[in-house]
Amino acid sequence: MVFGGIEAGGTKIVCAVGNRSGEITSKKVIPTSAPEETLMEVKAFFSHFDLEALGVGSFGPVDLNKESDTYGTILNTPKTDWKNFDLLGRLKGDYQIPVYIDTDVNAACLGEYRYGAGKCVNSCLYITVGTGIGAGLVQDGYTFQGKIHPEMGHVMVPRHSDDSFAGCCPYHGNCLEGMASGPAIEKRHGNKGYLLSHDAAVWEIEAHYLAHAIVNYTLILSPERIILGGGVMKQEILYSLVREKVSKLLNSYVDVGNLNDFISAPALDDEQGVKGAITLAADR
Amino acid sequence: MVFGGIEAGGTKIVCAVGNRSGEITSKKVIPTSAPEETLMEVKAFFSHFDLEALGVGSFGPVDLNKESDTYGTILNTPKTDWKNFDLLGRLKGDYQIPVYIDTDVNAACLGEYRYGAGKCVNSCLYITVGTGIGAGLVQDGYTFQGKIHPEMGHVMVPRHSDDSFAGCCPYHGNCLEGMASGPAIEKRHGNKGYLLSHDAAVWEIEAHYLAHAIVNYTLILSPERIILGGGVMKQEILYSLVREKVSKLLNSYVDVGNLNDFISAPALDDEQGVKGAITLAADR
Ligand SMILES: Nc1ncnc2c1ncn2[C@@H]1O[C@H](COP(=O)(O)OP(=O)(O)O)[C@@H](O)[C@H]1O
Ligand SMILES: Nc1ncnc2c1ncn2[C@@H]1O[C@H](COP(=O)(O)OP(=O)(O)O)[C@@H](O)[C@H]1O
Ligand SMILES: [Zn+2]
Ligand SMILES: [Zn+2]
Repeated sequence: MVFGGIEAGGTKIVCAVGNRSGEITSKKVIPTSAPEETLMEVKAFFSHFDLEALGVGSFGPVDLNKESDTYGTILNTPKTDWKNFDLLGRLKGDYQIPVYIDTDVNAACLGEYRYGAGKCVNSCLYITVGTGIGAGLVQDGYTFQGKIHPEMGHVMVPRHSDDSFAGCCPYHGNCLEGMASGPAIEKRHGNKGYLLSHDAAVWEIEAHYLAHAIVNYTLILSPERIILGGGVMKQEILYSLVREKVSKLLNSYVDVGNLNDFISAPALDDEQGVKGAITLAADR
Repeated sequence: MVFGGIEAGGTKIVCAVGNRSGEITSKKVIPTSAPEETLMEVKAFFSHFDLEALGVGSFGPVDLNKESDTYGTILNTPKTDWKNFDLLGRLKGDYQIPVYIDTDVNAACLGEYRYGAGKCVNSCLYITVGTGIGAGLVQDGYTFQGKIHPEMGHVMVPRHSDDSFAGCCPYHGNCLEGMASGPAIEKRHGNKGYLLSHDAAVWEIEAHYLAHAIVNYTLILSPERIILGGGVMKQEILYSLVREKVSKLLNSYVDVGNLNDFISAPALDDEQGVKGAITLAADR
């Protein structure tokens, strides 16, 4: 039996076909343009396979409230073409097989939980620090959704004492995403992150915000492991800086075990999202 | 069938007997002293009833990881008599009936969810702002626990620009509890909260911290409703101040519906904890 997975992102859509063991047998990356065009290309790819079911990890915000009239619809996104687009309805119509939808970060978390850095734990939080910041939680095999779904990248974090950057989130200014995403680093320091490797102050400030958010996630969600991924985490120094600050802030109040295990890197390169999407389909 | 409920707090233990409809038929309040003494009085009370099962909402931290060797044990508490006390084991031994344990705030949340301000929603977060600050989440009838259990009262919050108070949490200094609990108000302003009703600046600062924490809880947990209780919330002005600030901070990024419903007062006076404890027993 083969299953389809779609990782729908703001810049690209990754489509893949795979099995229950987490092996991907075929994969295609499609640039995200308007819904019609994009989904025609997606359909062309999947038409070569006899899928059992399809899983989708979608950019958002997406309505995940099963009781809602707009379940599976993209909500209030800056990508205006996609605003109010009924993604789930459209895919169900296109394929006439069961389609399961979740957030992109929940799907990525599920991928790591099943096949990657979360393989040995009962719950994990996957955080991506890239163009945006987002996080997904899996507990005992299930993704956590809440009423609509979490938007963990936008939490409020205390300012670093040496930082006067106003923040760049269009909604909140200085929320976590506004202070610590890749674009925030670029706007604060006038240079892209990968050109700033040598500048310790950059990563000290970055780690401050990530650590405060991680402490809050830990105190609120009590996950067994936290997996930190996304483009910005290519700066490997961040792992040790973040661990150190989290340890100091928690001050042994809750026992998170060995910090090197508690806060770890992803294990699936860039395939956690699409493998998680396939898992969404294969698990039901 | 009658069920027993114990709300075990740092200063008092509330024991009650009730049924599946949320009616309490008998109740006793016992001051919390050393475990032996206290639990003998508890046993004396329950000995008059033929209980089906017993539920406990306990002060903490308490080990709620069912796979742990110390499941149901009080962990690292400042109440030294109770540190490492196997509360669940002791109660099971005393009563020879099924005993279910959860945190005090999860039990309180379950009480409100079933019979109070959360009766009409699928998920709610109950926050108590008193001597300490804590919060519990119920989703679709189940309390949320995580690996050990959340400690939501200790989240990090951005400082109010007019506030120079260092904070009084023995672990974190300026976490939410350190900045916004009843004792924090007293230490910052040199007077107990109920004597400061007229001082607008006090509640402006208090609402700032509560609102930032609530925004984070909302973005991380996506609950359908938030119920704000505890002694400090006797200052009713806080409800409108907190709603206003939460609305401003969220800036419509997530849709929480009508704010007067989203953030509401408890409906069960001081019985949400013990009613929730009874529910823990009656539900299984
Ligand atoms: N080596 C690096 N160091 C710091 N930042 C990086 C590095 N590589 C990529 N980034 C930043 O990560 C962001 C892209 O994140 P990524 O996770 O790759 O994509 P996206 O979030 O768009 O899916 C960009 O803002 C980029 O500047
Ligand atoms: N009317 C009030 N206004 C402000 N604070 C109050 C008021 N009443 C009680 N408090 C504060 O609430 C705290 C006690 O909280 P409570 O929820 O009653 O008990 P506990 O948290 O110990 O179970 C104390 O710090 C007290 O000063
Ligand atoms: Zn934001
Ligand atoms: Zn604290």
